[in-house]
Parts: sequence; structure tokens; C-alpha cells
Amino acid sequence: MSVTSAVDTAVKSRVTHDQESILLGAVEVFNRHGYDATSMGLLAENLGITKSAIYHHVPSKEYLLELALDRALGGLEGVLADPLATTSPAVSRLDFVLRAATEVLTDRLPYVTLLLRLRGNTELERAALERRRTFNRAVAELVDEAQADGAIRSDVDSRAITRLLFGMINSVVDWYRPDGRVSAAKVADDIVAVAFGGIRN
Amino acid sequence: MSVTSAVDTAVKSRVTHDQESILLGAVEVFNRHGYDATSMGLLAENLGITKSAIYHHVPSKEYLLELALDRALGGLEGVLADPLATTSPAVSRLDFVLRAATEVLTDRLPYVTLLLRLRGNTELERAALERRRTFNRAVAELVDEAQADGAIRSDVDSRAITRLLFGMINSVVDWYRPDGRVSAAKVADDIVAVAFGGIRN
Repeated sequence: MSVTSAVDTAVKSRVTHDQESILLGAVEVFNRHGYDATSMGLLAENLGITKSAIYHHVPSKEYLLELALDRALGGLEGVLADPLATTSPAVSRLDFVLRAATEVLTDRLPYVTLLLRLRGNTELERAALERRRTFNRAVAELVDEAQADGAIRSDVDSRAITRLLFGMINSVVDWYRPDGRVSAAKVADDIVAVAFGGIRN
Repeated sequence: MSVTSAVDTAVKSRVTHDQESILLGAVEVFNRHGYDATSMGLLAENLGITKSAIYHHVPSKEYLLELALDRALGGLEGVLADPLATTSPAVSRLDFVLRAATEVLTDRLPYVTLLLRLRGNTELERAALERRRTFNRAVAELVDEAQADGAIRSDVDSRAITRLLFGMINSVVDWYRPDGRVSAAKVADDIVAVAFGGIRN
């Protein structure tokens, strides 16, 4: 079972079936054209339904953005709330967090893609970026702890390590394809292997 | 001396002083609002000059995009053309390429930021993305060679390694600030250290 499926169920219960299909379609259009450049008219055209059909299910474009960002952020926050992220030595928790965060990206690819491309032009976007920063800070604290334990290298600042680790993880949205040759599990294995062990033999 | 300054000089000689300041200003506006969402009117407003003053120096918005992308891609291609990238064992060349590519990002931050956010909606954008893929393939071949030499781990596919390495390097555009506490040299040192050695002690 996916470590994030319990969170998925909780988050998805907020939306109806019709909202769900509009949401996924909308997020794909946002990712292709940019959120700002997507009008409700363009959205309707791409979804193959009328604007009024969209408005029957969702009050606004911003509401769709809010649902989408909450799905991405809820997934990441769910990782930190997992018992495996709160017990055992810091380095083991960090291993779990990197693997589970990668799984959130591969599971919720369009939603996290949207989150990672936010420019912070509106209040809603800035609030989402602040939740992302809070998540990053929590991971940096975990790196701090693992450094204090002597398990992780200390010649690189914990925030720099966190940024580089999420540089690898976030790159997943640029190249991972759910229907591609490489499985989500192998992606997570590769990231954890390279993150902890480096590439040198 | 910067490993990329010779390339810088060559690329910059293509543009005049006035074009240069319009280009840098324009790229900052593109990065803030998105290239598609930036009209010549918005550009003029942000640069504090008239549209006709812009047209006196550059023929179109697309011309500015072309110059900007060429500066980013020219920097990266210059890394591969350096003698240090073409002689010595593959693993040493890879070390040089990762360090020098990071330096291109910190040196040419706004231009590379623009490149990394391209959606590929026009012929020009698709050509730039193809140049970027050619660069990535050349680095993946270097990783292949280093794997064949036994210097680099072989349990992760060379393309996956290349993507993760550039995940770290490209993340620089999201968090590096030229006027910040962390120097560009330290950023390159950290990336090379984590890439080759990993984070585990």
C-alpha cells in the first residue's frame, strides 16, 4: 500500500466525482498554458464542456487552484505526520521522508507540478508557497538532527543539503512519466541511493 | 578567472550596450510574469521606456527571448567545449562539467531561469529545448564513460543519474541569490561534494 494513500482518500473526500474530473483536467491545462494565462473559456474548450457546466461544479478558477495546491501540499505534509517520520534515528526518518516525498510527486504529479511552478502573484499562491517553505524547514531540521548525530556530513549547511535533496526530488516533475519505462518505486530507490551514497564508487 | 568568461565575452559581443540593458530588464520581466503573459506594453512599462524606444533597439519580443536563451545555452555548451571537459578520465571531466555548469547558472541566473521555465509552445522554444536535450545527452554519455571505467555507480541508469545531478544544479535558480550569504563558489563546491560523495557520513 502506498504511504500516501490514506492521505489521498482524506483529501479526495472533499470533492465530488464531477469536481474530481474537472480538477484533474484543469490542472493539466494550467500546467500546459500557465495558470495566469488560462481563462475559464480556455478551460471549458480544453475540457470539452461549457463554462456554465464548470461553474455548476466549481465557483471559480481560483477554487480549482486551491484544491490542486492543497492536494500537493497535503501529500507532503502527510509525509511529515507519518509515524515513520517522527520516531527512530533522524537519518532513518530522513530516508523515509525523501522516499515518501518522491512517492507523493510520482502519485500526484500534475498537482505537484503546478505547485512547483507557482510565481506567488496572488495571496492564495503566496500562502501555498509559505506552506511549502514550512515543509522545507521541517526537513532542514531533520537534516540538522542527523548532522548532530554524526550520521550526515556537516561540511554542507543543512539548508543547502535540503535544497539539493529537493532539487533532485522536484526534478521528477520534469522527466518522470507514469506510463514510462521507469517505475515510481525505482525512481524513489535511485533518489535515496544517490542522495545518501553519492554517485562515486 | 571564471571558466565561462571567455564565452561571456563572445556572446555579449553580439549585442550593443542599449540592447544589453533592455535584454536583462526584459528577461527579469519574463521571469516574473511569464514570457507568454508579457506584452511589449508591459515590458515598456517595467523598463520605464516607451515601446518605440524598445523597437529602436530590438525587432521583437521573440528576438529578446532568442538572445536570452542563446546566452544560457551558449554558456552550457561552452562548458562541454572546454579542454577540461574533453581530456583526462571521464570522472574528472564529469567533476569539471558539474562545477562549470553550476557556475554558468550562478553567472547567468536570469537567462538560465528563463530557459528552465520554457514550455515549448513555439518553434523557437522547441529549438532551445532540443539544444538543452543535446547538452543533457552529452553529459549522460560522460556518465556512461565514467560507469564503464568503474568510477561511478552502475546500479542507477546513466540518464537517471544525469537527471538527478541536473535536478540539484538547476534548483540553484530557485534559491541562489547573487547578493546572498552563500558564494557561487561554495554553491559549486557543495553540489560537487553531495553529487559525488552523497550526504551520509
